[in-house]
Order: sequence, then structure tokens, then C-alpha cells
Amino acid sequence: MSEQDKKNESNGGGVLARRRFMNSAALAGLSLGAIACTDKSASSAAAPAASGAAPAHGAAAANASHLKPGELDTYYGLWSGGHTGDMRVLGLPSGREITRIPCFVPDALVGWGITNESKKVMGTKADGSLKYTVADTHHTHASYKDGNYDGRYAWINDKINSRIARIRLDYFVCDKITELPNVQGFHGIFPDKADPVDPKINYTTRVFCGGEFAVPLPNTVGTEDSTKYHSLFTCVDAESMEVRWQVLIDGNCDLTATSYDGKLAATNQYNTEMGAHYEDMMSAERDACLFFNIARIEEAVKAGKFKTYGDSKVPVVDGTHAANKDPKTALTAYVSVPKNPHGVNASPDAKYFICAGKLSPTGTVIELAKVLDYFDGKLDSPDKAIVAEVELGLGPLHTAFDGRGNAYTTLFLDSQVVKWNVEAAIKFHAGDKSAKYVVDRIDVQYQPGHLNASQSETRAADGKYLAVGCKFSKDRFLPVGPLHPENEQFIDISGDKMVLLADHPVRGEPHDFIIFKRDLLKPKQVYNLDEFPLATKDPKDSGVVRNGKKVTVRLTSQAPSFSLREFKVKKGDEVTLILTNLDKIEDLTHGFAIPKYNVNFIVNPLETASVTFIADKPGVYWCYCTHFCHALHLEMRTRMIVEA
Amino acid sequence: MSEQDKKNESNGGGVLARRRFMNSAALAGLSLGAIACTDKSASSAAAPAASGAAPAHGAAAANASHLKPGELDTYYGLWSGGHTGDMRVLGLPSGREITRIPCFVPDALVGWGITNESKKVMGTKADGSLKYTVADTHHTHASYKDGNYDGRYAWINDKINSRIARIRLDYFVCDKITELPNVQGFHGIFPDKADPVDPKINYTTRVFCGGEFAVPLPNTVGTEDSTKYHSLFTCVDAESMEVRWQVLIDGNCDLTATSYDGKLAATNQYNTEMGAHYEDMMSAERDACLFFNIARIEEAVKAGKFKTYGDSKVPVVDGTHAANKDPKTALTAYVSVPKNPHGVNASPDAKYFICAGKLSPTGTVIELAKVLDYFDGKLDSPDKAIVAEVELGLGPLHTAFDGRGNAYTTLFLDSQVVKWNVEAAIKFHAGDKSAKYVVDRIDVQYQPGHLNASQSETRAADGKYLAVGCKFSKDRFLPVGPLHPENEQFIDISGDKMVLLADHPVRGEPHDFIIFKRDLLKPKQVYNLDEFPLATKDPKDSGVVRNGKKVTVRLTSQAPSFSLREFKVKKGDEVTLILTNLDKIEDLTHGFAIPKYNVNFIVNPLETASVTFIADKPGVYWCYCTHFCHALHLEMRTRMIVEA
Repeated sequence: MSEQDKKNESNGGGVLARRRFMNSAALAGLSLGAIACTDKSASSAAAPAASGAAPAHGAAAANASHLKPGELDTYYGLWSGGHTGDMRVLGLPSGREITRIPCFVPDALVGWGITNESKKVMGTKADGSLKYTVADTHHTHASYKDGNYDGRYAWINDKINSRIARIRLDYFVCDKITELPNVQGFHGIFPDKADPVDPKINYTTRVFCGGEFAVPLPNTVGTEDSTKYHSLFTCVDAESMEVRWQVLIDGNCDLTATSYDGKLAATNQYNTEMGAHYEDMMSAERDACLFFNIARIEEAVKAGKFKTYGDSKVPVVDGTHAANKDPKTALTAYVSVPKNPHGVNASPDAKYFICAGKLSPTGTVIELAKVLDYFDGKLDSPDKAIVAEVELGLGPLHTAFDGRGNAYTTLFLDSQVVKWNVEAAIKFHAGDKSAKYVVDRIDVQYQPGHLNASQSETRAADGKYLAVGCKFSKDRFLPVGPLHPENEQFIDISGDKMVLLADHPVRGEPHDFIIFKRDLLKPKQVYNLDEFPLATKDPKDSGVVRNGKKVTVRLTSQAPSFSLREFKVKKGDEVTLILTNLDKIEDLTHGFAIPKYNVNFIVNPLETASVTFIADKPGVYWCYCTHFCHALHLEMRTRMIVEA
Repeated sequence: MSEQDKKNESNGGGVLARRRFMNSAALAGLSLGAIACTDKSASSAAAPAASGAAPAHGAAAANASHLKPGELDTYYGLWSGGHTGDMRVLGLPSGREITRIPCFVPDALVGWGITNESKKVMGTKADGSLKYTVADTHHTHASYKDGNYDGRYAWINDKINSRIARIRLDYFVCDKITELPNVQGFHGIFPDKADPVDPKINYTTRVFCGGEFAVPLPNTVGTEDSTKYHSLFTCVDAESMEVRWQVLIDGNCDLTATSYDGKLAATNQYNTEMGAHYEDMMSAERDACLFFNIARIEEAVKAGKFKTYGDSKVPVVDGTHAANKDPKTALTAYVSVPKNPHGVNASPDAKYFICAGKLSPTGTVIELAKVLDYFDGKLDSPDKAIVAEVELGLGPLHTAFDGRGNAYTTLFLDSQVVKWNVEAAIKFHAGDKSAKYVVDRIDVQYQPGHLNASQSETRAADGKYLAVGCKFSKDRFLPVGPLHPENEQFIDISGDKMVLLADHPVRGEPHDFIIFKRDLLKPKQVYNLDEFPLATKDPKDSGVVRNGKKVTVRLTSQAPSFSLREFKVKKGDEVTLILTNLDKIEDLTHGFAIPKYNVNFIVNPLETASVTFIADKPGVYWCYCTHFCHALHLEMRTRMIVEA
């Protein structure tokens, strides 16, 4: 056993000798093996597996995640909806999903992708059909003020089509979607927390987006030569949702983090090799955490020091190694971190970014003050900003914080969460062999990816709860065919030892999430009629207006009826139907479906929505309320009569 | 107070004087008022409302719905997915959603509506695009054998487009969808439980479907004259999923029930008036429960006594009053029940169907043996099959059973579930004023629609749990903007008193569900390669085959790589990509996304799926695994190079 192994063993507990950097062949075999070994068949549901049963916090401990009926949760969780392309809103500690907010993918309840209003947000092709109907939503973050969430906005990304969506947190609706130019595989996303220059702007005004897959710029030539491929790091304006600028980099972007002072953003890079095959992507022993000096980048853009690519007018500055050799003028700094890191997270004390090694068993602690020293020319290498690099376990991915100096890192291969003390890790790294930085470990079920703690990514980290997104659930739920749910586990981190509270099955792939105190949000539950230019404010204004082949149908809903009991159009008409819900009682939503015309959408209290379609089928079509509203809900209908 | 009021008061508790039949004006005001009155603002999340907190079953009672981590549920729940057009699979008593099975609406995780295989099930237009992308899924039921679920199939309906979907309960996938001809607003659905003639067929071979909205037959003329409109009751073959026959009826169909002996099916009718406006639909004091004599209908079809309508070749027999005056030859029997009934449910002792009055405060108990007597000419009126009609409370809708002789009926307007004893109700109706049929009442939060008890709709009703779908949640969860979740409540019915265990928020509108013991299902968790004719069984058979402009790309997935690291096509090619997942470890699903090409789908262990698209954009497209599979998941990619 090497000296380093012996040193680390005091923090690891016995099996650290195997925790070497891995080569590609070993890793490809090992991790799959790990999955296979821990796999217990759930094909028979007969025997409950309670191996992960929670030990009680003393004899009288109640399980905090078990709410009484009617008891309200104390935290909101904003969850990435994965392939469903939406944002899930959870109540915690119960883990209940309260709503989903459609963004990138159509939603047949709301009528997202069906109404004219939602199609405008989603984006359409020339023929009016939706540009995209699939998504791969990974990360979710919310807007900040004074280092805590301010309840204005949240953002999520679509990796497949490089889109960023903004959600208004007053009405819980997506109001803007932007497709990033010249980016493929947009993965990491993080809003800034302050302006790098103006101290009065102590809130989010930018969102940073990491581009993972390198492609030709512009991507119009099908070349196999991957030396012609590049990745971009992108800044989106938080208010206008327009792309402000991009940075051309060496290597790729994975996840993203921002400093509390607004001066720095960073992305971890797992493919500094710029390999096109996975073996090439893992050939180097160290990759990087790439820092961006925001103020200098914006000065360079202002000074016109940029290019543009293809049809895009977005200024692209040069952030490659070659162009940034002088620290005093550099826009970027590449801090090396071990092999294929995954995850970069900002500690709530605002001092550190932590990268996890993925194919190395280590966590790397980078001190932000030293990164700024590097940009000031006070350090001769950006790697001197590394203040700790310690072994944590196999397959470390993401890190959360409790506000008491401890970090919690998921270990994908070990199927564990390791709790470790950051200052102790720094002391250990500096040579203090007595510093025990590993505080606790807990088994999770199984193969955890993201995790997050309550308020972890704010200055107000409160160290109460930890949610862990386990990628495999295997035997933890009743069998439901070949597609297993993932397992989101909820852990009490308020004491010294982590205590598993609950397993929640979830449809793939949620990836990331944030958890914060419920009093940070003040949602509105009834719309304002005046926000809708098309609103019909008085039922008497309902009716059918014809302009050649274009017909506008205005109607209102008030339980249990629509203002028009029937309306007539002619075969071939282009019909725009505008529905205003004049019910103003909270929770009194109506739906509107037209059989055979592929129309279904809802109008919430005092909301207006519209649809446009060609009346191509003659006959009688009972348009009915699809959202239960009243004892006479079934009877709530209007007739669309399409005359031949 | 009338004599009847006094009689009923002993079973109702004080306010029954107001429980009269309601006229339209009163009802329209009252029910809306009821909603408004009980509405408590949840705009501030500050104060938890625990008014519905569960009283304990004695001092040491544990809440059965609170499982320990890793503990398996003991019941499956199959839930209608509402507007999401899918079936939700729950574990109970925890209430956790384990998976969702896409049926009528595209699903961007599975690639439902994206893969060629799913598009074939869903149905496409001439241009290859999906015929429908919205749905309104109401009722879910499963196949029977010997009066209990046999784990073969489940069915759900789409009301908007009159479609029925079948789900295979081995793999938890939808394998067939049928659109019913000449039906609009297909609402109620129920499989039969035995053949009416052949006693050896003691399992499901038919599914009955109720058509709610009357339309012209065929619906090709936009006439306003509603006397020309008709509804049909439809029989679908459980195996072939083809439509066997339909019945032309007077009035409409709402929900559906079937007898255990296979001889009878029924639908409640809320609009015997055949009104086109809601006031007309509620003008009569009594509507009906319409019975179908299955054996006679099939004899009539066999004898050629049917018509067809429009393009449909489905035989339609005449079930109207006028054609069925002689009970001894009648195909149908109209049993009158009070005002706008909603819900018809078969008791697990196989003796009764129960209809709830909705706009009448009553439940009506119809004895099936007497209905058969009517068809045998032994009763002079079908109404003589009514053995009880008792007051239950305001707005009764649906009824579940505990197998101990008790019925549980939701009271929409009272926001209650009432537990009542069926035999006591029959005695009371027969004149025994001492018979106390109301056993218990519990407040639910709020306005309940469907409910169902564990095993309620089988001969094996076990009276353990009751789930109640409350249409309004109001203040029961953290506020999430104008669209509230619904509230599904879970109730322990094992004792004399009902005990509320848990509230679960749910996205609208689940409507109906069934709950049964977990050992009734034996799902398969890995596919069989041989079930997929397009499977690539050996990675060596991967490759690109060109046939003019048509290109077939065959590839396999084995973590962490796809068998082709890159593949080339030309701009304008029609590409069919066939992916076989050769990983056979349970839970090892891969995804496959193509950026900008609107492709994303998954392949479960040993599954094969394909997509077809036009390669209309030149460039480099990183096709990547979207379903977390391995430590090198991020690195698992292939390149599609589209040459100009």
C-alpha cells in the first residue's frame, strides 16, 4: 500500500487500495459489474426488501417525511422532469409531486403545444407545427438575490436540442424558451448571483450554459475530422432570454457553477482530450475545471474582440488556451482536476468550488480567492488554486452542502453518499494526517447521480434534508415491466449520522433539483384578465366573426356552461377559437376539447387561451369541459356544427 | 318535514330536508356555491391545515401508508392518467407512482409516438404524422378470470377521440388501440367477466364501451336538429381488439358495469331527455340504468338483424324503446333511476348494480336476478328490479364495496364518503324503519368523484383500503399557481369507522382506478430478443445498408457504447435506424437521442425499436444515450455524419 493509500485509508475504511485511477478497460468492466453484482431480482414481489430501513433517531423519533393528511410541506423542490421536458414541483419532506410545468415537450392536459400561446413559446416550423416534441431536461436552478432564491424565475435545459426554458415562479408557467446557436448537447446551467462589476446588482441577470458536444462551427459540414469540432460556453440574459455572448473553448463543458460575488463562472470538463470515442475521452489522467472571468469577457465583447459563426449574430470571444496565456488579460483559466470529472458545486460559504473525479476516487477543492489571484497575476499556475484533493470513494459525481462545513458527495460505483468536512480535507491535503475529513457514509439504492440538500446552493444552506437521485431502483419497488423507475431517496442530515427517510420512485430521468424553504415563494393562484390581450371580459361579447375563410369564435366559461351553446362554421374555414375563463374562484379550472380535431386545453381562473385549426370535417362536434368543475361538469358542453 | 324525510333522517343526520330533487337553477347555483364556501385560500403557505388529520386506530396504531425505505407495497393500483393519455401504476398503500404506461398521447421518454412501433399502435395520418396527440382518459379496468383479475390485460378509454387502448400486464405496454366508429364521447368501459352462454369461458372476452354524446349516424352532416342524433353502446373483442357489434339506444351512455355471470351489461344514462343544453338534460326527474342482454344481442347479430352506418361495417342492432317492447325478445331494458345518475357499480356478491343519483341524493339498488326475470317475462316492468332507493347525501356519484356487505359512495356536493349497508338499505326500502343503513360518513377534501376499494370490483373484495379521487385540493398542498392538483385520499376501511391515512396530489384528471393484490401480477422485466423481428442479435451485424435514397442503420447498445461509433448518411436520405439493446441485465435501459432531428426513445433490456426520418440537415449529430446506464454514460455516443 502506498503512503497516499495509507493516508487515505484513515478516511476511507479499508478498501481504498482499489480506488486507483482507472483505465478504460477496467472501468468499462468494473462499473457494469458493480451494477450486475448488486442486482437483486424483483421478478417476484413476494418478499419485501427492507435492508435500507431507517434506524430511528432515538426511541421516540418520528419520520419527518410522513406528513399527516392535510399537513403542508415545509420545502418546495423544483425538479428537472427529464425526458418529459417539464419542471416537476415537489413538496418536501413528503416527496409528493404537486404539479408539473410543461416547457420543452407538449402537454395534453394544459394544451401546451396545442394553444397558440404555448406554440409561440415552444417554437414552430414554417408550416405551424412544433419544431421539437422531445427533450432531455437535466438541470434546474432558480434566480438569486443576496445569495438566496428570490422567487422570480427558474430555468431548465434541454440537452437534445440545446434549449433553455424560463419558468415564472409567480404563476408556475414557462414563458420563454431560447435555442442556443452553434451548441450541441447543452448540459450544465447556472444563473449568476450578482454582477461582477456593479455591487448594486446583487441578483441574477445572467444564466450560463455549458455546451458538451463539440461540433463544426457552424455545424453545416458533415466532416469526420474531429479536430474541426469546438464547444461553446454561453451567457443568456435572464430578463430578455436573448443570448448575450459565447466563449470558444478547448475541450468541452459539462456542469456549471457560479460564484456568489458574480466574478467567476466555471464548467467542469471531462473531455479535454476532445476525443470522439469514449476510450479517447478517458485517455488523460487529468481533465479540468474551466473558469470564466465574466467582467473581462464582457469587456472583450464591448471592445469588439469577437467573431460570429454561421447565421448567428452572437459575439463569440476566444477562451482557448492559446489565446489566454497571460493571466492578467486571460478570459479563462483551466484548473486541472482528475480524470473525467463530473459535477462542480459552489460551497455556501462562497469560498470554494468542488469538482468530483468520476473516474478518479477524488474530490478537488478549488479556492475561488486563489483563482482571482491567478487572474491578478499573483499565482504562476491556476492549479495552485487547488487547496484539497482527497479520496472520497468510487465514482464521485455531485456535491451538496449543509452550511455547517460539510459536503455530501454521491459515489456512483459505491452506491453511497459520503459526508466529508471541507476544512478537514484542506488540512489533510496540507499534510495533517490526523485530519479525519470523512464524517459518515450511507448506502443508497442504487448508483446515485445528482443529490442536493435543502438550501444547499444558497448562502442559507440549512442542513436539514438531502435528496439523492439514484439511477437504478432494481428491487426497491413493485415490478412494473422492463422499464424500472429511478429511486429518489430522502435523507435526514440534521444529525451527525445520515438517516434514510424514504424511497420515491420517479420516471426517468430527473437528473437535478433544488430544495428551498416554502416562504421563498408567493405564487398567485388566479390570473388577471388584463394580462390577456385576447380576453373576452363579458360573456355578451361572445360570438362568431367571419372574415372570408377566417373565422374567430370568442367564448367564455362559467360553470356549468360555455357562453355559446353552439356555434357554426363551414368546412374549410380556418377557425381561431378564443376561450376566456370568467370563473374567478381559485382552483376552478375548465378544459376544452374538440373531438376528432386534436384539441384539448385548459383555462385557469381568469385565463384566456386560443387555438387555430382548419374545420376540415363536417358534422357535429361536442366541445366539452375536460377539467372537472362542477356537479354539472358532464353536462358542460357546446356544439361545433361544421356545415359541409 | 315529510314522512319520507323523517324516515331518511334517521340515516342522514339532520340536514336531509334540503336533499330534494333539484331543479336546474337551484343546482347550478348550489353546487358552485358549495365550492365557493368550502374554499380556503392557500395563497399563504404559512399555516399548515391539519383539519383532516387522521385519528389513530387506538393508541399504538401505525399509519399503514407510511412504508419504511425499501419496504414493498402490497397492492398495485392501475390509475387512469387523465389528459396525459396514459395508465399510471401505483404501489399501495404508499400511494407512490411507480411507472406510467403511454397509450393515447406521445411520451418523450419511451419515444411513444416517435418510434415506428409505437406510431403503428397509435395510428397515423396519410403523411405519417400522428392522428391524435391529445386524450382524455377516464376509466381503467382489467381482465377477469373466475371473478378476479387474471393479470393479462387492462383497458383505458380516450373520451375525446373515442379510442380504447389495451395494456399488456406482462410487459406493462400498450399493444393495441381501437377507435370506435360512429361514437363521440366514449366514456364508460368495462370488460365482461364470463361468457353469457358458454360456462367454460369464465374469463374476459369482451369489453363494453358507452358512447356519451349523441351525433348524426354517420356524423357527416352538420345539422343542428338534435332529434337526428343517436348514441351507441359498443362491444370490443378483448383479444383482437376489433369492434364486434354496437347497439343503437335512446338517450346516452355514461358509465358501464357488467355482471359476474356474463349475461348482463349496463350503462347509466343521465340524458334520457337527449337534450342539447344542460338545462334540457336535467329536465326529467328520472333517467335510467340501461341493461343489455348480451346473449340476445349476439343472437340478433348472428341472425343478421342489424344495420351499418357510414363507412363502418360494424353490425348495429336496435336497442331503442320502440324496438324492445316485448321483454321476452328485448335486447335492452331501461330501469328508471333518479335524475342524472352518475356511476353504476356491481357488488362483489354478484347480486346488485348500484346507481347513484348525482342530482338526486339517492342510491338505487337494482337486483340482477330480477332484471333477468324481466327478460324472462316474469316482471311486468323493469323498474320492479329496484330493491332499494335510499337517501345517501348530496351529489352521490360512484360506489365501492368492502366484501362485507357495505357500499361506499362519494358525495360530490357534501364532500363526503358515506358508508352504507346494502341489505339494510333494502330492508329500509321495503318498509323496515328501524333499519339503519348509513354506517359511517367521513369528510374528504374536496368534491370527490371516483372512488375504489381494494379488490372492490371482484369477487375477492377485501375491504382494506379505499382511494378517493377528490376533484379539488384547494388548501391541502403547497400553492403552485392557478392550476391546482387534484387530491387523492387514501382511507383505511378495515374497521367500523373510516380512517383517513394520506393525501396525495395528482395531476388532472385521473378519474378512475382499480386496486388489487400484488400477487395477481407477475410482470416480466427483460424482453425476449425473438419477439422483435427487426432485432440485431449480434453486434457484428451492425451497419449501414443503402437502397437508393433509403438507408437502414442497424446498431446495438451495450454499456458504455453503441456498436457503431459513427455512421454516414447523405442529405435527403430517408433513414431508418434500428436499435437493439443487447444488455440483458434487468433495469439496464438505454436511450437514443439525435439532436435537432426530434428523435429520442429508449430500448429496455433485449428490446428493439426503430425510427424513420429524413436526413435534411447536413452536419455532425452526436447521438447519445439519454437513459443513465453506466459510469461512462455521458461518454456513450455515436456520431451521425450527414454529408451535404
